[in-house]
Amino acid sequence: MKDAGGGKGLITLLTDFGLKDGYVGALKGVILSINPAATIIDLSHDISPQNILQGAYVLSQAAPFFPKDTIHVAVIDPGVGTSSRHPILVETSRYLFVGPDNGIFELVLQSEKVRRVIHLSNREFFLKDVSHTFHGRDIFAPVAAYLSLGVDPAGFGKENGRIKKHRLERPRTNKGIITGTIIHIDRFGNIITNIQKDFIAPAKPGKFILKVGDRVIKKFVGTYGKAKRGETVALIGSNGMLEIAKRDGSAALELASGPGQRVTVKILK
Amino acid sequence: MKDAGGGKGLITLLTDFGLKDGYVGALKGVILSINPAATIIDLSHDISPQNILQGAYVLSQAAPFFPKDTIHVAVIDPGVGTSSRHPILVETSRYLFVGPDNGIFELVLQSEKVRRVIHLSNREFFLKDVSHTFHGRDIFAPVAAYLSLGVDPAGFGKENGRIKKHRLERPRTNKGIITGTIIHIDRFGNIITNIQKDFIAPAKPGKFILKVGDRVIKKFVGTYGKAKRGETVALIGSNGMLEIAKRDGSAALELASGPGQRVTVKILK
Amino acid sequence: MKDAGGGKGLITLLTDFGLKDGYVGALKGVILSINPAATIIDLSHDISPQNILQGAYVLSQAAPFFPKDTIHVAVIDPGVGTSSRHPILVETSRYLFVGPDNGIFELVLQSEKVRRVIHLSNREFFLKDVSHTFHGRDIFAPVAAYLSLGVDPAGFGKENGRIKKHRLERPRTNKGIITGTIIHIDRFGNIITNIQKDFIAPAKPGKFILKVGDRVIKKFVGTYGKAKRGETVALIGSNGMLEIAKRDGSAALELASGPGQRVTVKILK
Repeated sequence: MKDAGGGKGLITLLTDFGLKDGYVGALKGVILSINPAATIIDLSHDISPQNILQGAYVLSQAAPFFPKDTIHVAVIDPGVGTSSRHPILVETSRYLFVGPDNGIFELVLQSEKVRRVIHLSNREFFLKDVSHTFHGRDIFAPVAAYLSLGVDPAGFGKENGRIKKHRLERPRTNKGIITGTIIHIDRFGNIITNIQKDFIAPAKPGKFILKVGDRVIKKFVGTYGKAKRGETVALIGSNGMLEIAKRDGSAALELASGPGQRVTVKILK
Repeated sequence: MKDAGGGKGLITLLTDFGLKDGYVGALKGVILSINPAATIIDLSHDISPQNILQGAYVLSQAAPFFPKDTIHVAVIDPGVGTSSRHPILVETSRYLFVGPDNGIFELVLQSEKVRRVIHLSNREFFLKDVSHTFHGRDIFAPVAAYLSLGVDPAGFGKENGRIKKHRLERPRTNKGIITGTIIHIDRFGNIITNIQKDFIAPAKPGKFILKVGDRVIKKFVGTYGKAKRGETVALIGSNGMLEIAKRDGSAALELASGPGQRVTVKILK
Repeated sequence: MKDAGGGKGLITLLTDFGLKDGYVGALKGVILSINPAATIIDLSHDISPQNILQGAYVLSQAAPFFPKDTIHVAVIDPGVGTSSRHPILVETSRYLFVGPDNGIFELVLQSEKVRRVIHLSNREFFLKDVSHTFHGRDIFAPVAAYLSLGVDPAGFGKENGRIKKHRLERPRTNKGIITGTIIHIDRFGNIITNIQKDFIAPAKPGKFILKVGDRVIKKFVGTYGKAKRGETVALIGSNGMLEIAKRDGSAALELASGPGQRVTVKILK
């Protein structure tokens, strides 16, 4: 695939606002009032309320497929209106990210080269009356819109350089056992872990033992279609991460699993 | 925030159609068949089926953030196909509103200057076969599309001037007690009332008593972040209306409250 | 309604991906990376997981309203990654359809003139690493994007001509009794059958007997508004198909009905 053009004027939105309240509509109205030529794409608005880890995961899966210069706005913001949480703008070699500094960008930035981190403070680029509860509309949307018009990141505030660290657990390997965490259950009931492709590359058929709770999965397949009907298997998902899937069913229901739960994998020689 | 341009060709959609049935897709197809250059923005399609009040509220919260000349289409339409309900077009100093005359525009028009009300009757601008059940697709979408092409509102039907009145209860003040109504529960479980900012402006800490059912809320905070974990408080929301919110939880579940329920507020001196 | 222009660069998406996982966002990112000027419209992403019939129905209801040259992408794809399921491109006199060859296009093609069927095989137009589980992102999205840039359908693979047949049951008439199937329950609880307008055109008031399970519906109305509050009636829906609707309620709940159930209709003379 060749990159046939840039993402100038392209803004993506990721929030936990849902679609029934008009909050997302207000964001889009603010953006289009500043830059009527902006193209706005929804990544998701159905992140579980205030679930930063889930938002960080979904952002990391979708954002890298967008063209250069895309502006990614992410608003999962339980700390809105408190002084300990800062609004930031992160410029990488490919993208601009706008949102609260609460870990929401940590996963997606693992595959980006960060150039600048700006703490948003120039109220000239905010809505006139900034509410205490809706910085998505009053700060992040207008900042993204002005960025899409070509305003330099430096104009929005002081370059600071620091991004707050999220407590996302990384997989560990100890005595040949990989220990990871479930980070997301998708719409199909697939269980997505934080164990990346590289950790389990050497797995051979019949030499794979995955444990989640008191359940054991021994079948590791190359493709979902290789599972029999009703069978629960492990595989590397389209995101490069270890997943547990049930053919024609929900692995999450089958294993009664949810985000945060521990997963261990042992690869036999 | 400066307004850098207009909303020419910009159409927003608010419906109770949901997103699983393809109804919204059909609307967009009709619009783009007439004006392929139109920009279509979803305000919400998850209004509770036939809930005009909820639709009116969401519209009033999102529409005012859009640029001048935006065309707002709203289709919450329980009376579709009956002779008592007329399709209308309302031109204000900023916007054009298209939908059924059933109260859906009442809240949003409180902050608009109405210029003309047209009863849509010119079948030249409807789809050829108008169904009895889907005026969103057959009347409102094509009318919006032709408006976005620059057709004058007068071309769509007779100027009438009247808009039907909705029975939305306004807050009352009696012997220092404000009585209002819950008009919406948002995704986060926040309880939104019809009591506007101005009614409770003089509230001081410790001098505030809100009652909903047999529950009493005495804490009124300036920002959501000021509530302790698990605490239920009152505040002025980003929409300028009195809300009840529970920190890290759902106020609606906590208070077992829903739309239509009465709320009283007493401000002590 | 006049057709004021074409759908050049217009791509619609229908999937069962839902909106919480970022899968749809990734599709859009891929498309916009190849053709930043593409206009992307969502038909629905809330098709029940792997429900090809429901997807085929929704596609057939929404797609025909789009302008000529629109590219319709449909990804309900339970067979993804298996060798028995081929990715195809169907060119008709009006549209281009892109997706798996599993019956998803059967209903919509009933009203289209098929010109060419291409089996997608030219990997030049796929993402570099095609996953086993996400052909929507890796094959269908980039193919649609290149089509929107004007690449000739012949460039994507071998013309084959065959489309797999879906097992969708058609209504039968035997001794004056029409037997059909429920194909969809919409958001409002309306029950949509596969019995088209023409089958029951000769129905007269009081001469109509519909049976679903052990329930009998005798009232056939011209418009939904003609039903009394709480009444369950039959009517021809906006899609030209026989529907069962309950005024101010859910017919599906009332009749405890769901997709796949049998419906019989007898028209008395």
